[in-house]
Amino acid sequence: MIFRQLFEKTSSTYTYILADANTKDAIIIDPVIETVDRDFKVINDLGLKLKYAINTHVHADHVTGSGLLKQKIPGCKSVICDPNAKADIHINEGDKLNFGIKKIEFLSTPGHTNGCVSIVCHSAKSIFTGDALLIRGCGRTDFQQGNPGLLYDSIHTKVFTLPNDYIVFPAHDYTGQTNSSIGEEKKYNPRLSKSKEEFIQIMNNLNLPYPAQIDRALPANLVCGVQE
Amino acid sequence: MIFRQLFEKTSSTYTYILADANTKDAIIIDPVIETVDRDFKVINDLGLKLKYAINTHVHADHVTGSGLLKQKIPGCKSVICDPNAKADIHINEGDKLNFGIKKIEFLSTPGHTNGCVSIVCHSAKSIFTGDALLIRGCGRTDFQQGNPGLLYDSIHTKVFTLPNDYIVFPAHDYTGQTNSSIGEEKKYNPRLSKSKEEFIQIMNNLNLPYPAQIDRALPANLVCGVQE
Repeated sequence: MIFRQLFEKTSSTYTYILADANTKDAIIIDPVIETVDRDFKVINDLGLKLKYAINTHVHADHVTGSGLLKQKIPGCKSVICDPNAKADIHINEGDKLNFGIKKIEFLSTPGHTNGCVSIVCHSAKSIFTGDALLIRGCGRTDFQQGNPGLLYDSIHTKVFTLPNDYIVFPAHDYTGQTNSSIGEEKKYNPRLSKSKEEFIQIMNNLNLPYPAQIDRALPANLVCGVQE
Repeated sequence: MIFRQLFEKTSSTYTYILADANTKDAIIIDPVIETVDRDFKVINDLGLKLKYAINTHVHADHVTGSGLLKQKIPGCKSVICDPNAKADIHINEGDKLNFGIKKIEFLSTPGHTNGCVSIVCHSAKSIFTGDALLIRGCGRTDFQQGNPGLLYDSIHTKVFTLPNDYIVFPAHDYTGQTNSSIGEEKKYNPRLSKSKEEFIQIMNNLNLPYPAQIDRALPANLVCGVQE
């Protein structure tokens, strides 16, 4: 397996590239439009064939790079769960995608948005949690169909059923941490280690500011970041 | 092996924590004073016993966190190569340190500064190159005993003799990339893939600005970041 974690500073977004080391078939998770040139260079330098550009959800804090990558790499297909967003492939709970002999599996993990998915790669003992589960945190639930009770259930009935040693790769971190583990988050996540009632109360009282990029990001991310 | 890569945004510095998963004995490479609390929390959450706080060199762009970590974690020893810097242990070319059953080996890789080391962990197929080798770049050579010819030789006669699949973990990246490989840097590094003469010419004509934190960082880093 070839694996790269990449960071976009303005929105503190992590982008991930995974590839089969033999066939060079690759996927990218949550690319950002501002860093498409960097990601395209990494893909080319490593000799990868990008099959899928996947968004874990319709992001409110940055514009996706999936549309630009599709323009640069013929044959690459965009993938999302949200039925309201345009993409080549709409996936649902339990769906799988292959790249070479490697495989990822999608878990529907709504609560931050209705269309949020987490992506499990068992051969890498890893889960890419998007904004559902962050390191010692989670995505906010005060816009875009956010629902704290639903998010709590998504994490506890799906994400937290994975083995404790599975690595958690989130879509963001604001403290410079690059990954965590299921065991750590079950034990130390200051929100999700609480009861459902306590979690809902925490999430309903965060009083967060209006997201800086939301008015630009939401309409763009419904069409892979680029208008046709 | 337990492994964590951590990022400090202001100076774009990577800090690394490595530990033996069984004994929990750990080392930290290039901690930053502003993120010591974060790193200390990671160390505690993972139940690690920090044996060594290592600096790859006397940094000019941030103040080390090694002294503060020593204050917080009794028994932790500071490690550096530079004979002018204060530390519990001064290491030299070929020296090794153990944490649990894991081992790291030091390569003297001067050129950015005289006291620069790179740290090889064969069991993780990884090298921590400090500022000697960066992803598609290298440390500047225009202050602090910088010498481009010496840096070129350090990389070509030592770092680049490792297998192509060894992972390169640098002390900084300014583009959001988290790692590279020896094979990639041999092939694609725009400076170090050139001849020695071309490299020296490139390095002598970078015309870089005066480092923002150097006047604060250099004296502090000669005493592990904290005055006694």
